[in-house]
Amino acid sequence: MDYRSAGVDIEAGDAWVQVVRRLVARRGSSLPSSGAIGGFSGLFGIGGGRSLAACCDGVGTKLALGEATGILRGLGQDLVAMNVNDLVTCGASPLFFLDYIACGRLDAGKMESVIEGILDACVESGCALLGGETAEMPGIYPVDGFDLAGFAVGLVNDAEIVSGSGINEGDEIIGLPSSGVHSNGFSLVRHALTDGGLKLPLDAKPGPLGGETLAETLMTPTRLYVRQTRAAMDSAAVKGMANITGGGLEANINRIFPDGFVSKIDYESWERPGIFKLIESAGVEEAEMRKVFNLGVGYAFIVSREETRPLLDALKSAGESPIAVGTVIRA
Amino acid sequence: MDYRSAGVDIEAGDAWVQVVRRLVARRGSSLPSSGAIGGFSGLFGIGGGRSLAACCDGVGTKLALGEATGILRGLGQDLVAMNVNDLVTCGASPLFFLDYIACGRLDAGKMESVIEGILDACVESGCALLGGETAEMPGIYPVDGFDLAGFAVGLVNDAEIVSGSGINEGDEIIGLPSSGVHSNGFSLVRHALTDGGLKLPLDAKPGPLGGETLAETLMTPTRLYVRQTRAAMDSAAVKGMANITGGGLEANINRIFPDGFVSKIDYESWERPGIFKLIESAGVEEAEMRKVFNLGVGYAFIVSREETRPLLDALKSAGESPIAVGTVIRA
Repeated sequence: MDYRSAGVDIEAGDAWVQVVRRLVARRGSSLPSSGAIGGFSGLFGIGGGRSLAACCDGVGTKLALGEATGILRGLGQDLVAMNVNDLVTCGASPLFFLDYIACGRLDAGKMESVIEGILDACVESGCALLGGETAEMPGIYPVDGFDLAGFAVGLVNDAEIVSGSGINEGDEIIGLPSSGVHSNGFSLVRHALTDGGLKLPLDAKPGPLGGETLAETLMTPTRLYVRQTRAAMDSAAVKGMANITGGGLEANINRIFPDGFVSKIDYESWERPGIFKLIESAGVEEAEMRKVFNLGVGYAFIVSREETRPLLDALKSAGESPIAVGTVIRA
Repeated sequence: MDYRSAGVDIEAGDAWVQVVRRLVARRGSSLPSSGAIGGFSGLFGIGGGRSLAACCDGVGTKLALGEATGILRGLGQDLVAMNVNDLVTCGASPLFFLDYIACGRLDAGKMESVIEGILDACVESGCALLGGETAEMPGIYPVDGFDLAGFAVGLVNDAEIVSGSGINEGDEIIGLPSSGVHSNGFSLVRHALTDGGLKLPLDAKPGPLGGETLAETLMTPTRLYVRQTRAAMDSAAVKGMANITGGGLEANINRIFPDGFVSKIDYESWERPGIFKLIESAGVEEAEMRKVFNLGVGYAFIVSREETRPLLDALKSAGESPIAVGTVIRA
């Protein structure tokens, strides 16, 4: 049981990024400078020593579980989090967010929950909801079906851009706890729940979930890491940051590394949340679990060994429970 | 035969905008200033006398015809145009664009056409493709199904923001030709073609289309008005600009008017393209045609009578065929 058999082909996705890069390159200088396609966010200089950062993301097939369970409000926070958590990895402060909601037929009651979640997450992230589009698209979506996409823009002083370029052997990787599966890997979750060894109803309360239903645990909103990122940057020399989404810890952390370095994660260094044990028990191999899920660590900082203490102190003062999850090694 | 019977409820859409406004207002100052929700674009001041403008839009159910006809490349231009044409109405210059592609299964060959269209439209609009998201979402979309959303960000000097606030009785409304239906009203088009009096195959070449097939005419990409907007602003005191999308000429032009004024459009002042005559012949009333389609005018400028001549000259020098489509009157 793996992501590909659940209908999502990560390698095809990676190949697709190469196709887009080639099409961009072919246009040369006729296309204005086009940022880092494939990174967590794109950067665009606006003069005066400042750059805009922007990103775009959806919530994936967590939507289908939202529809099945009727738990929709958290999807709004998921949508903002998927975007602003990517955005802040370069050191940018979020300025504004826009949402795209497409549906078969507009159910204002249902979508109001989603917008409430978006607005509360914007408040927590310190960004405005600058606009959006809600489109009724009969025939493209089933009457009850919908999709959500989001878009976030932030501002960063060029001198404060966190790019990962200074990362070196021996640097420490400090993680922040996730709230669970967040908004990635849900095609595999659904596959495991329906076709795997784990045929559980959504209102079941299996032991590893500590009293919560499967629906509640799975629909827990993605954590926002905006405030924590700011606290970290104010107190420590942060070399790099990674938002742990599809691809898991190693792939996402390695994205920001200079050539020649990779991350060495000690997967025993934190307690894996029950939901991941449950998914694994449905027949997903450990290697696949590591490639698809955050496994309990939703965001990571890379700092030199000397900066570890000020970083940990700053994160704890911000109410966090940081975890030393690994180190940087030569590839 | 109207838009509502085709599955799109414009009034429900307007009511929805009010719901979002109320939810935003309820959060008061805890939510950073949130621009003009419901306008063509949102504005966000970044100091130094400059503001960012941003918008978000999709291509609507034109997608379904793209899938049926296999004519996909133009959808990329449609997506960029739906966004940048909204963006430039405030006087902003486009900086960058991001795309969201969601699909049941990623068909790289098909999506490459869409990206080619996006990139060429970005080149023509002078903006970068700063990033994007391509998501495989099995179960949410059919294997062959997909949706497209786009986001554009621009920059404007605060002193040059075109807001419509100075519009007054007697001002002239100057239109630019559309390339056809653009990317709005396709649910009604499809309804007319399948259930209406106009049961024509997509490869038919009905007389009013002047030799083109129905598929070719309908899939003609939305025109980009970025260059023309710049030319107009460089040569004339433009009071207001409107992108003519869903809602038609009057609703879109009136959106930027101060209270107490409306537009008086002379619908006989230009030759209506054949495709609109064809749709009307399927049983859509004239009043509904005016509320749903651009009817041949895709973008509009509002200027005082004295500025009409320099505006017309500038637009003609930019290769355009501007049309005096109406005037501003008291409501």
